[in-house]
Amino acid sequence: MIKVGVLGAKGKMGAQTCLAVEGADGLELVARLDQGDELDELTKAGAQVVVDFTRPEVVMGNLEWCIERGIHAVVGTTGFDDERLATLRGQLEASPGTGVLIAPNFSIGAVLMMQFAAQAAPYYESVEIIELHHPDKVDAPSGTARRTAELIGAARREADSAPIPDATTTELEGARGAEVDGIRVHGIRLQGLVAHQEVMFGRTGEVFTIRHDSMNRESFMGGVILGIRQIGDTPGLTVGLEHFLDLG
Amino acid sequence: MIKVGVLGAKGKMGAQTCLAVEGADGLELVARLDQGDELDELTKAGAQVVVDFTRPEVVMGNLEWCIERGIHAVVGTTGFDDERLATLRGQLEASPGTGVLIAPNFSIGAVLMMQFAAQAAPYYESVEIIELHHPDKVDAPSGTARRTAELIGAARREADSAPIPDATTTELEGARGAEVDGIRVHGIRLQGLVAHQEVMFGRTGEVFTIRHDSMNRESFMGGVILGIRQIGDTPGLTVGLEHFLDLG
Amino acid sequence: MIKVGVLGAKGKMGAQTCLAVEGADGLELVARLDQGDELDELTKAGAQVVVDFTRPEVVMGNLEWCIERGIHAVVGTTGFDDERLATLRGQLEASPGTGVLIAPNFSIGAVLMMQFAAQAAPYYESVEIIELHHPDKVDAPSGTARRTAELIGAARREADSAPIPDATTTELEGARGAEVDGIRVHGIRLQGLVAHQEVMFGRTGEVFTIRHDSMNRESFMGGVILGIRQIGDTPGLTVGLEHFLDLG
Amino acid sequence: MIKVGVLGAKGKMGAQTCLAVEGADGLELVARLDQGDELDELTKAGAQVVVDFTRPEVVMGNLEWCIERGIHAVVGTTGFDDERLATLRGQLEASPGTGVLIAPNFSIGAVLMMQFAAQAAPYYESVEIIELHHPDKVDAPSGTARRTAELIGAARREADSAPIPDATTTELEGARGAEVDGIRVHGIRLQGLVAHQEVMFGRTGEVFTIRHDSMNRESFMGGVILGIRQIGDTPGLTVGLEHFLDLG
Repeated sequence: MIKVGVLGAKGKMGAQTCLAVEGADGLELVARLDQGDELDELTKAGAQVVVDFTRPEVVMGNLEWCIERGIHAVVGTTGFDDERLATLRGQLEASPGTGVLIAPNFSIGAVLMMQFAAQAAPYYESVEIIELHHPDKVDAPSGTARRTAELIGAARREADSAPIPDATTTELEGARGAEVDGIRVHGIRLQGLVAHQEVMFGRTGEVFTIRHDSMNRESFMGGVILGIRQIGDTPGLTVGLEHFLDLG
Repeated sequence: MIKVGVLGAKGKMGAQTCLAVEGADGLELVARLDQGDELDELTKAGAQVVVDFTRPEVVMGNLEWCIERGIHAVVGTTGFDDERLATLRGQLEASPGTGVLIAPNFSIGAVLMMQFAAQAAPYYESVEIIELHHPDKVDAPSGTARRTAELIGAARREADSAPIPDATTTELEGARGAEVDGIRVHGIRLQGLVAHQEVMFGRTGEVFTIRHDSMNRESFMGGVILGIRQIGDTPGLTVGLEHFLDLG
Repeated sequence: MIKVGVLGAKGKMGAQTCLAVEGADGLELVARLDQGDELDELTKAGAQVVVDFTRPEVVMGNLEWCIERGIHAVVGTTGFDDERLATLRGQLEASPGTGVLIAPNFSIGAVLMMQFAAQAAPYYESVEIIELHHPDKVDAPSGTARRTAELIGAARREADSAPIPDATTTELEGARGAEVDGIRVHGIRLQGLVAHQEVMFGRTGEVFTIRHDSMNRESFMGGVILGIRQIGDTPGLTVGLEHFLDLG
Repeated sequence: MIKVGVLGAKGKMGAQTCLAVEGADGLELVARLDQGDELDELTKAGAQVVVDFTRPEVVMGNLEWCIERGIHAVVGTTGFDDERLATLRGQLEASPGTGVLIAPNFSIGAVLMMQFAAQAAPYYESVEIIELHHPDKVDAPSGTARRTAELIGAARREADSAPIPDATTTELEGARGAEVDGIRVHGIRLQGLVAHQEVMFGRTGEVFTIRHDSMNRESFMGGVILGIRQIGDTPGLTVGLEHFLDLG
């Protein structure tokens, strides 16, 4: 039984995490903390792994506290830059055996999509990304689409791929989408949609497509639970859930 | 047996039409003419219906000649404006019983897609168009996508539809596609694709999609054959293959 | 303002209907009744239209009561056969001006899909249906898929369509799906899905697809609201929401 | 420049291979042989790599001849069982430095689809396969769909996955498809289609889909060319194109 504490337990993701931990085999929810609660409750409850869905202003303090006590952490809070990651690495060196996972995206499907897309990229002449979301989304393209484009762009550069063919000479402004790292990205906004993405690859005579449909926040819980289960065996700092997936 | 003559028989569409006529039940190919041939061959061969895939410079002369002789015409040649259509209407009044079909698109699937999209439009809050083509295409969006957007825009205006919801405030240029008559249109270009279009409609809790995949020029022949079979029973001028489809 | 009463207001669909009526322009929810409540409350509240999501055992009594009082009814309750419909027609003759809509499916998208599929059927050689649902569904194929197949089958018979081509000689049992009225139907069951259906048509060189994705019960409310708005102007018995859609 | 000879050069795949070799950078087509031609022409022409698209009855003799002379081979001919593979391994031991690739499927997209599907399988509760082909296909499901199902089945067993959820109790015969190694497989046959496959994975709140569309025989040439380029650096016997793809 792995004893789990949740920080930011009253937030949307934190609350969902509490539900998911309670429903998962081999995990026990021993502490749910939010603003105003004392971190000491984690040690009192014997938490071995902490899940942090708090805010950029407090997450570094939370993690320092956990690392000093040998409590592993699975972190969905945003705002990590190189400096913060370096700080964490330093703290973890002083606490060997403790593991911290920083994951910008806990959706296993989104992570698989990005990994597979990067692997497939060198074998195709063309690639474009279509992301489809509900109309309340304020940014276009989505962060996942941008990240996917960057990974594909890097894979194509490494493979020394030829430029993507495109004979367009007459374009109504915007028709060919936005360009991220040389990759065309199209954002669809439609009532009734939730969060979806399609990566299309093409070469003469064939098209290869990877698609991910995320219906709700529950879809992130698979990745959170996977992180909790594996972080105890993964000392040091890990950035990105993909390192916990066995994609050999 | 309907006796059919083809004008522009050596062009890509004309040649395909000859093949299709030869393979169709109840049709007989009696004349295949191209540049330099005499129209008289049509009457000598007893052509009842002529298919014209020629050029804007010669099509009006061809049609006048046919109408005067009571030969029906199915026309895929481009370049018809209101003036040309008015001219044809005048000529057809003087030759009652003769029919001319001017069709900018002979693909039955494309015509169904446009008709159904216009019919569905009033029942949905959101709609966007994605067209996907081979990378040798020079214009974006495609003519079919523009026309579909115009038909949807008109249907929405007639139904007094509310504005399409879209909360986008941060957009990488082009991410949300081009706008045609208030409808967002996205053009994908990918090696391996031919000609495809998807119209997506959405309202709370549901998405409705119409998709058309055209693999090759053969896909236009269904509409040409349908036109040949029906034009004899449809005197006067008809613009658009949709009028020959029974979509009641 | 149309005054609306809901019968079966505590059931899933009834409760959803109450929410939808409250949120709709021009409608006022004046009565919500369930088992044990008196129908008299409808007249006391001045209900002009009643929505019935009750049970086959009580719906006929409810409707008789409403028709006698000139209250229009929109009915989602199941279990109507020819005998029941004949009974209702008789009652409605005695109450001219009163309208009753019996709708087996209130999803506008599902109704559009079925109507368009029947209209497209005569123009294609091949057609198959794929329905995709969550794995808790107990029947395969879905009722909507069966109904779609029957409509397509009827349209093909009326158009005297040639048999669907299929050269399969070696089949692993079930690989080619079930057959409903001559149409192949395939049922996919997948965790993460809700309720989806795709109708694919094909002819040489082109494929035409109609797809409907229903994410939740809210997707039925568009049809219920449409029914409430139009039933007052549609005296007599109407079976099927399609008659309230303008698909001319 | 790699000098390439083609065996079975008059067959469909062989002819396509000749075209592809002639169009590929760094490859030179030096011999095209078919029934009745002497294998000696390969050595006379200096062939370094041979592509074999012949028949099961002659391929073993061709390969023995090539291996003895240190000519590498890329083989698309079918009919290899364990005994034949053992024979080849024995012959290759006696000719160190020589490489033979036996590939049942040269489509890079199909190989990627199978590899990614096997990798994704352990992370999802549900999985089903839909393969879609032209109606002239005689077997259902397709060989690729069967192979994909076997790979997924094996990956699920290795990961000790729970049984796939399915509450179906009422099934019209065939509605839930065929079962291959515990995986449901559905075969669609439609005029207008070529060769397509979709693998759908699902877990609570998300669906992950991998799709491959193959439009024509050209789509296999990417894999053949890749094989020719790499076989010289891959001594011994390799079974399956996936070993030549960098999917680390």
